[in-house]
Amino acid sequence: MAGSVFGNNFKVTTFGESHGKAIGCIIDGCPAGLHLSSEHIQKYLDRRKPGQSDFTTKRKESDKALILSGVFEGKTEGTPIAILIKNEDQHSKDYEELKDKFRPGHADFGYFSKYGIRDYRGGGRSSGRETAARVAAGAVAAKLLDEFGIEIHAYTKAIGPVEISDCDLSECAENPLYMPDHKAYEKASDYLEKCIKEKDSAGGVVECIASGVPAGLGDPVFDKLDARLAYGIMSIGAVKGFEVGDGCKAALSKGSENNDEFFSENGRVHKKTNHSGGILGGISDGSDIILRAYIKPTPSIARPQSTVTEAGDDTTIEIKGRHDPVIVPRAVVVVESMTALVLADALLENQYAKVDRIKL
Amino acid sequence: MAGSVFGNNFKVTTFGESHGKAIGCIIDGCPAGLHLSSEHIQKYLDRRKPGQSDFTTKRKESDKALILSGVFEGKTEGTPIAILIKNEDQHSKDYEELKDKFRPGHADFGYFSKYGIRDYRGGGRSSGRETAARVAAGAVAAKLLDEFGIEIHAYTKAIGPVEISDCDLSECAENPLYMPDHKAYEKASDYLEKCIKEKDSAGGVVECIASGVPAGLGDPVFDKLDARLAYGIMSIGAVKGFEVGDGCKAALSKGSENNDEFFSENGRVHKKTNHSGGILGGISDGSDIILRAYIKPTPSIARPQSTVTEAGDDTTIEIKGRHDPVIVPRAVVVVESMTALVLADALLENQYAKVDRIKL
Amino acid sequence: MAGSVFGNNFKVTTFGESHGKAIGCIIDGCPAGLHLSSEHIQKYLDRRKPGQSDFTTKRKESDKALILSGVFEGKTEGTPIAILIKNEDQHSKDYEELKDKFRPGHADFGYFSKYGIRDYRGGGRSSGRETAARVAAGAVAAKLLDEFGIEIHAYTKAIGPVEISDCDLSECAENPLYMPDHKAYEKASDYLEKCIKEKDSAGGVVECIASGVPAGLGDPVFDKLDARLAYGIMSIGAVKGFEVGDGCKAALSKGSENNDEFFSENGRVHKKTNHSGGILGGISDGSDIILRAYIKPTPSIARPQSTVTEAGDDTTIEIKGRHDPVIVPRAVVVVESMTALVLADALLENQYAKVDRIKL
Amino acid sequence: MAGSVFGNNFKVTTFGESHGKAIGCIIDGCPAGLHLSSEHIQKYLDRRKPGQSDFTTKRKESDKALILSGVFEGKTEGTPIAILIKNEDQHSKDYEELKDKFRPGHADFGYFSKYGIRDYRGGGRSSGRETAARVAAGAVAAKLLDEFGIEIHAYTKAIGPVEISDCDLSECAENPLYMPDHKAYEKASDYLEKCIKEKDSAGGVVECIASGVPAGLGDPVFDKLDARLAYGIMSIGAVKGFEVGDGCKAALSKGSENNDEFFSENGRVHKKTNHSGGILGGISDGSDIILRAYIKPTPSIARPQSTVTEAGDDTTIEIKGRHDPVIVPRAVVVVESMTALVLADALLENQYAKVDRIKL
Repeated sequence: MAGSVFGNNFKVTTFGESHGKAIGCIIDGCPAGLHLSSEHIQKYLDRRKPGQSDFTTKRKESDKALILSGVFEGKTEGTPIAILIKNEDQHSKDYEELKDKFRPGHADFGYFSKYGIRDYRGGGRSSGRETAARVAAGAVAAKLLDEFGIEIHAYTKAIGPVEISDCDLSECAENPLYMPDHKAYEKASDYLEKCIKEKDSAGGVVECIASGVPAGLGDPVFDKLDARLAYGIMSIGAVKGFEVGDGCKAALSKGSENNDEFFSENGRVHKKTNHSGGILGGISDGSDIILRAYIKPTPSIARPQSTVTEAGDDTTIEIKGRHDPVIVPRAVVVVESMTALVLADALLENQYAKVDRIKL
Repeated sequence: MAGSVFGNNFKVTTFGESHGKAIGCIIDGCPAGLHLSSEHIQKYLDRRKPGQSDFTTKRKESDKALILSGVFEGKTEGTPIAILIKNEDQHSKDYEELKDKFRPGHADFGYFSKYGIRDYRGGGRSSGRETAARVAAGAVAAKLLDEFGIEIHAYTKAIGPVEISDCDLSECAENPLYMPDHKAYEKASDYLEKCIKEKDSAGGVVECIASGVPAGLGDPVFDKLDARLAYGIMSIGAVKGFEVGDGCKAALSKGSENNDEFFSENGRVHKKTNHSGGILGGISDGSDIILRAYIKPTPSIARPQSTVTEAGDDTTIEIKGRHDPVIVPRAVVVVESMTALVLADALLENQYAKVDRIKL
Repeated sequence: MAGSVFGNNFKVTTFGESHGKAIGCIIDGCPAGLHLSSEHIQKYLDRRKPGQSDFTTKRKESDKALILSGVFEGKTEGTPIAILIKNEDQHSKDYEELKDKFRPGHADFGYFSKYGIRDYRGGGRSSGRETAARVAAGAVAAKLLDEFGIEIHAYTKAIGPVEISDCDLSECAENPLYMPDHKAYEKASDYLEKCIKEKDSAGGVVECIASGVPAGLGDPVFDKLDARLAYGIMSIGAVKGFEVGDGCKAALSKGSENNDEFFSENGRVHKKTNHSGGILGGISDGSDIILRAYIKPTPSIARPQSTVTEAGDDTTIEIKGRHDPVIVPRAVVVVESMTALVLADALLENQYAKVDRIKL
Repeated sequence: MAGSVFGNNFKVTTFGESHGKAIGCIIDGCPAGLHLSSEHIQKYLDRRKPGQSDFTTKRKESDKALILSGVFEGKTEGTPIAILIKNEDQHSKDYEELKDKFRPGHADFGYFSKYGIRDYRGGGRSSGRETAARVAAGAVAAKLLDEFGIEIHAYTKAIGPVEISDCDLSECAENPLYMPDHKAYEKASDYLEKCIKEKDSAGGVVECIASGVPAGLGDPVFDKLDARLAYGIMSIGAVKGFEVGDGCKAALSKGSENNDEFFSENGRVHKKTNHSGGILGGISDGSDIILRAYIKPTPSIARPQSTVTEAGDDTTIEIKGRHDPVIVPRAVVVVESMTALVLADALLENQYAKVDRIKL
């Protein structure tokens, strides 16, 4: 397998190179009867669209989602939903110079080692552009979850060393960095402008919260809900670390501090705290699911770097083209989408977890 | 699916509850002609066996691996390899008191919500005991990788706040915490003894290095090598964070710092640094693969904690039984095993990545 | 993959060679809360047990099913159900003579070509003995279907040229050929005795009827219910043809003859005829599902046959050992089991076919 | 899952309804470096294109294959190959009258039972039109196989009761029924014209031969090569029976007649006969693979038939529209395509069947 299929029940396959004719996806397994329009999908795509601020690539893509199948009279049919997004503003020429050089920090060298061939135009399949197809699929998953009161919100938690200290989600839409803290946004902007001036790039952290998730989603062994989330989130290029709940810090904690005590209220089980981030032993515990993606700085920088050619000769490289100095803000909706895909998959799988759920 | 199947090509299915008759696994897809003995598997199992120090559960299990199929005259046959490990020293009675209480920090509540039924005897399928089956499978994967010069070594990087400052792998075998730094081991021992005295527990960090991995393993989209590793490692109970290479810290870095420059030597491509941890864009880059698992403190503690019964009543719980005050040292070989499973899978998949590799 | 996994939702993995220590299976995905005992499984296994008449191999196997996991206090737990069946009466010595000869009509040559190694003892993994593990799994699937009123019955429709003309299912248990027509049974017995005398073997036909199947199971494209059944039934060694409903004869028919007209009765849709065999366009239509498996004669015969050795030399072979002169009667319960596995899988998948079926 | 994914290694997902915007497929897992053009795919599509004779629907579709991704500079990249085929000549109005009536012999009723919704325009996903996407994928698989000397040829063996008595493959291209026997073609034409006059339809048989297949492809248990072929072929709508080699007739044969004796020639193993149809015990034996698909008569006929409305009322139906009086000739290339998909999948899987095949 070339590994372009995600999910077991709500199964998504994406296709498309950065500079090919189009990208897109097929969703196989979306239940019939879900209200779905291309406008809904468009809202998600617009959030990751390039060219929206100084901090994103100047590439202009309208990123219009075209639903080719699976929807009839405004509702899903239970059959595969194919979504097409055309590529429009490719500047493949920008890449001519890089044609036979391996870009540091990029997949180029591994890609060439694996396939013996390489689509040098913008990274081919390794390009962040592929994530537009995931976002289209994620929008459908989010619509399905929404029917059941499950909502997912992601935002920028940090840009380089600048971290939010407040979290007002309504603020996210107000700034191009999707930071829920206006002051942090201003500091982060300054930091990024400095990076750009220095022909350098920045990384950051995306945090994502899923609320309304019932207890019982996920599995106790390999397909733990957090393992599936880790797989989905780490499959976003440039993510180098993943955590759920207290995450890495839990390693420093003691059992008496890290355990979330249970209590009963109105006939339902609650937790006093949420160190677990909503998942215990791989199964959702009814609290908000909280996860974080740690994203490395954009590897495409204009500074000269040492590298090697396909022929094996030492050389230097300066990457011009049109690159995001930071990909974190555009990754926000991708994190949300992957989270939605995992939860939709788990929700469907849960429909036959016990005999007394099953209906003829 | 109940999610007990791992891998696509080297496909492992595990079974077994903590207090059932036996646990074990079937490996479907191991190539024929690999030399394999139960002694080899036993070496791996012995490393996670309980009852080996004050810092692990007193449960006594010989954990003898019995190969039931797939091996003939000392070699794999290409057919499913079934491995059985009997459960011997179950004290199911220890759990009678917990029978209808949800243990904080454990899967109990989610498990019950999902299945409407619960194997209260030691957590059933959620027990760390299940990992013995993975280790048996991982030992086979490691044997396969070893044929091709790929070696995997994991060790304890930190216990609670005590981190190693040196890394001498030969030291690992010398102390029950598998720490490659004798001084850190001594400090960690003190820390753990204090935890035990306080009826508390500790977490920590496991680091794992795979060397000899050729460039080109993995995939550019969903099945990125690091995404698959994240999935495998996060599927180990109690792991709350995962990172590869510089990991979470990469988010603070700049592109000029985080990129690994390439150079050529003896006709091969090398990297000056290894911030990437051996994986770029989801594909191995020929450097050592370095990953870390952040493990939470054991949730079973003897202190009284608030909780709720299955009937929904508030109550308190004190967990006696025989529990590891820290699971980190026993998780070391599990991390190694999951890493081996992912790499074996990627190695097999890579056999048909390009036409000129294919043979009739 | 070595292809020993069957099903997507109700997922079965089998293991074991004919002359190894044991055979068995793991079922991953059986819903929790199903009443299940080893006695239930035993009933199915007893129907395919060897040594029950002159027409089956003299090999004696008690074929005791041992449930190792997944069942607690008489109910399934939602976790993997592992079932073990020990091999007892292997006469591996019988095969010493065949050690380096490819048996005509057997997998030997292809097996050796594929794996470069061969378990000559009774065909290893290619042996019909593997089907005991399927029957154990099929018994569990049948139990699940039974909860929802779905029943499956298979029987011998023909032995060589002797076909039933009547079908009284109660008669099946009365004769070792599982023929629902006593007269046909007597003729078939005569035919088989003649075959045995001539050191020859016979084939035949198994027919299987599933009743109580609701309309709507299956999928419209690749995973058509009949395609999945074909896959399951043709995966039984020695099956060379498969058909559903009118089957091959439908090719001779006209649309006006082959179409089943619908009518309404008591608020439900019925068909006047059942040429379709209960499946239209890959989806169950509410009628009985009727399928047939055409089974070739046992390839192991005592007559001398020409063949080739592993070294590539021409030679002759006479297969002694203990072989069924006809495998049809023992295949009856295997056909039933594979049918149950496919239907259980389709039933589970159907739980999320439409949004208004889904529950949190 | 909605079951629109086929294959494990060479994995194909199709999408598209008969009267939607487009149909198409994604192939995930095609090795890099294969020469591929849209012209090659077009040749296959042209063979199933409608409107080519009196015996096929009058619907006019240019069926132009547009490769959207996965091919760069004339070679496959190892990444997903997406192929788009636009729908052009839909007459959805033709279906208005059928809107709430279940067509006998069609999937309509099961479809509605499953999804609670139904795309009445030409059968939606159940339409034969979906097979164009399979043919596009099959053309790619055939190209891959061709690189290794594996060729697949299918033809019409029978139309209704008219069977070929000769087999000259060059004749196939000469007549619109793809019959390799001119005399049979003439008789079949007469038969079909009579069917059309009587507002009736015909079925028939497609035979397919794969030559050049090496011994060793396939698996000994569930994923037997013939089981996979049965799954692929039976997933073509209207196929009611499948057989390999002597097929159903093998049930009447004796072991001494059905076994193919081996002999050695030029250092290779051969079979004196080919009753097995090239597959023994689920693994290819080096002979030609021969299989047959038995196809029912087109269910859409203009005669009045009894049926039921969605509301459950008895009614009659006369299906006008533009329908093939026989689908057999157009199914020929579909059978070839599904065979190619299965063999390509098996070929890739075989690359890691034994350790000494594996390369770093």
